[in-house]
Amino acid sequence: MFNKRIKIKELLQQEPQEQEVTVMGWVRTFRNNQFIALNDGSTNTNLQIVAELGQFEESLLKRITTSASLKVTGTLVPSLGKGQKVELKARVIEILGDSDPEKYPLQPKKHSLEFLREIAHLRFRTNTFASVFRVRHALAFAIHKFFNEKGFVYIHTPIITASDAEGAGEMFRVTTLPFDNTPRNEDGSVDFKEDFFGKSTNLTVSGQLEGELAATALGEIYTFGPTFRAENSNTTRHLAEFWMIEPEMAFYDLEDNANLAEAFIKYIIKYVMDHNAEDLDFLAKRLADEEKQLPQDKRSEMGLIEKLEFVLNNQFERLTYTEAIDILANSNYNKKKKFQYPITGWGMDLQSEHERYLVEKHFKKPVILMNYPAQIKAFYMRMNDDGKTVAAMDILAPGIGEIVGGSQREERLDVLLKKMKDMNVPDEELWWYLDTRRFGTVPHAGFGLGFERMIQFVTGMNNIRDVIPFPRTPKNAEF
Amino acid sequence: MFNKRIKIKELLQQEPQEQEVTVMGWVRTFRNNQFIALNDGSTNTNLQIVAELGQFEESLLKRITTSASLKVTGTLVPSLGKGQKVELKARVIEILGDSDPEKYPLQPKKHSLEFLREIAHLRFRTNTFASVFRVRHALAFAIHKFFNEKGFVYIHTPIITASDAEGAGEMFRVTTLPFDNTPRNEDGSVDFKEDFFGKSTNLTVSGQLEGELAATALGEIYTFGPTFRAENSNTTRHLAEFWMIEPEMAFYDLEDNANLAEAFIKYIIKYVMDHNAEDLDFLAKRLADEEKQLPQDKRSEMGLIEKLEFVLNNQFERLTYTEAIDILANSNYNKKKKFQYPITGWGMDLQSEHERYLVEKHFKKPVILMNYPAQIKAFYMRMNDDGKTVAAMDILAPGIGEIVGGSQREERLDVLLKKMKDMNVPDEELWWYLDTRRFGTVPHAGFGLGFERMIQFVTGMNNIRDVIPFPRTPKNAEF
Repeated sequence: MFNKRIKIKELLQQEPQEQEVTVMGWVRTFRNNQFIALNDGSTNTNLQIVAELGQFEESLLKRITTSASLKVTGTLVPSLGKGQKVELKARVIEILGDSDPEKYPLQPKKHSLEFLREIAHLRFRTNTFASVFRVRHALAFAIHKFFNEKGFVYIHTPIITASDAEGAGEMFRVTTLPFDNTPRNEDGSVDFKEDFFGKSTNLTVSGQLEGELAATALGEIYTFGPTFRAENSNTTRHLAEFWMIEPEMAFYDLEDNANLAEAFIKYIIKYVMDHNAEDLDFLAKRLADEEKQLPQDKRSEMGLIEKLEFVLNNQFERLTYTEAIDILANSNYNKKKKFQYPITGWGMDLQSEHERYLVEKHFKKPVILMNYPAQIKAFYMRMNDDGKTVAAMDILAPGIGEIVGGSQREERLDVLLKKMKDMNVPDEELWWYLDTRRFGTVPHAGFGLGFERMIQFVTGMNNIRDVIPFPRTPKNAEF
Repeated sequence: MFNKRIKIKELLQQEPQEQEVTVMGWVRTFRNNQFIALNDGSTNTNLQIVAELGQFEESLLKRITTSASLKVTGTLVPSLGKGQKVELKARVIEILGDSDPEKYPLQPKKHSLEFLREIAHLRFRTNTFASVFRVRHALAFAIHKFFNEKGFVYIHTPIITASDAEGAGEMFRVTTLPFDNTPRNEDGSVDFKEDFFGKSTNLTVSGQLEGELAATALGEIYTFGPTFRAENSNTTRHLAEFWMIEPEMAFYDLEDNANLAEAFIKYIIKYVMDHNAEDLDFLAKRLADEEKQLPQDKRSEMGLIEKLEFVLNNQFERLTYTEAIDILANSNYNKKKKFQYPITGWGMDLQSEHERYLVEKHFKKPVILMNYPAQIKAFYMRMNDDGKTVAAMDILAPGIGEIVGGSQREERLDVLLKKMKDMNVPDEELWWYLDTRRFGTVPHAGFGLGFERMIQFVTGMNNIRDVIPFPRTPKNAEF
């Protein structure tokens, strides 16, 4: 049995009473041939280990380099130095693994996020990424906890799908057919009957349609899984592979849906603030340092923690698309032609700059926009009584833009069929989806939260590539 | 605001005091033009609703058919009938959605699991599948809870990977290249530089290698995500798309690994027994009914609940591969040539029939087999001092076979490099994996649990297609 170590996070909470303990971790720094800062990933706070002068062989001390791994047994004593309450007086130091300081790419200095992305396999060893991924964990756990407490059922919707129904964007093909001597039909087209699944298949862009099948039986469900877009978007907000949470609820209307989404976002932010205060403090400081390099008018008005508290303590602003268009059209921004895309009137799709104006300049808080024009939204959204808007909602967050998209779903079979026809959605492919409207249809609603965008919001990381362990983007699938 | 209903599960726990409540759900049965059994997916127990004779119009009553959806407001009163403590005396009945009994495929009678698989979009509405998917949810939540309590970090490893390093089986290609006019290099080979990621990519078969990167920085991590095998296996235990949990721990040896795995399995079983007793009772009865149709010698020795309790209350048997071979070679089964694959001696790979013999006939409890011959195991498993076995472990469960596979990982760079060379694993592709051995390598270990096999074990469902909402198997990617 190897694992009799104590984690540094736990150890730092103990009173120093000369108790003997064993820790294991990686060296962050080694000062004066005497003071080792050891980190084991449980916290950003390093444990100070004192190797008293003359007590250890020079050959051993030489091997205590940045990122070498150690097993240290000693006694926990009060620290005389600044910056820590306790320290470990080493009795035995064992080198578990060496690290050649000439070759190790991470030095105890500031590296750019771009450089760290190239060594994503090692960036877990930095304070920034250790905090980001501990926060990512906490958010994921909070999501499951929130839904579990409410009696939602976690549903794994399929990753590989044959349906191209949602038309949410370009898709990745999944296949076992060869590019050479591809099986062909008589007319020369590819014979997908020979493919693994007997038909053409893709990676899912959303689990919503399958989620609705479960919700219209189990009542309230949610998905939490990877989704994919084969879009050639090289931005700080897009990934080809990302994770989505998609709750779907029977017997909900649009207002119920918005209430749930707002409560959900607040719950998971509060959970992280309660459980990861140290990580958030670190990330807040990092963000503040980063912003110091920006011109005054590009800096955030609030610090990270302040922003999260603000979201917790304020009701999200709710307004209709129509109201939003009025505000935008009458804004000084629009009149002074500061928008790249001018406001052309009702019916236009909102651009990211418009959403950010509403959130960051006008309301200065998260906004729930509701009731969009039917023609700019998906086929499954419920037609409102006005005959021109649908019961859709987007939640827009400061600094991020759209973080949630949702709607009440069209539960009326005849209205849905007409909409699908108008929008060229093939109804024979979606026979199973339509069955839920044929047999005991119910009012229902749901939304999707982009997990990485939520992490960006909570951690203040500007680039979405820095909140997922191994980002997949155009021309990049390293590791 | 639509959602002022109370869930039936909650309602059934209330004392009947003529309080007015609103419920919504789907009709299971309607007897004597008076008694509606309503189900809303929160529990298998239906709510009895009494529509007093003469109080509702005939035209309304006619529409109360199996699977029609209702909104009912009334008062909760003690039930005079058998089988329930309370019932709802209806004041208002609203039909939310009709269901044509001539067309609705699910009738209030027993359907075969094969038939239900063809209408997987509706099988959520049966008691069997509602229970299976509520148990699936509970198991998933218990898994996150277990690791969260221990300070593990949940890591999302990539689904799309460029590495074919593990060689765990055939893989699905992920591509945006067309089959017609595929871009080609001068030598005629496919030009994958033109593919979305600039190289050839596949769906992951395991997140382990990436998990190790995180563990050797954060200490203890786990993954929980979809994995894929493009194997043409049409069995009751194989899916092309399934979910795996892969914890990976720095500073663990094989014994620590086995201890964690055993504690983990017991924790999640106990969680489900504590939280889903009603579902398990239902599934136990279902299994018992199903087994009545089998000849005596094919039936399980224990009922479902009994089996789960037995696993909770007994230590898993731990033995080496070498000891297992001895037991098998000397067994009457082997001597009487009852094995399809006879025991040929040390070094052979164990077949499922051998594993089941050990678990079901010999030890009659879960077994942890350790220290397998190096040549039948993966390159990353740690070589033992004997120079011929590796620190691998498989956990075998009654009725299922292998449920966990794991090992201590080879942390010694030189040993690992030699092994990769011997096994033709390209080391230049895995430079990032090897870096963890170059810079502060540590003893570490991990395992993988097949989520669907675990659900099969807990629910007693014989076919793996019946424990995932929409199974993907050869020639099948419906819904």
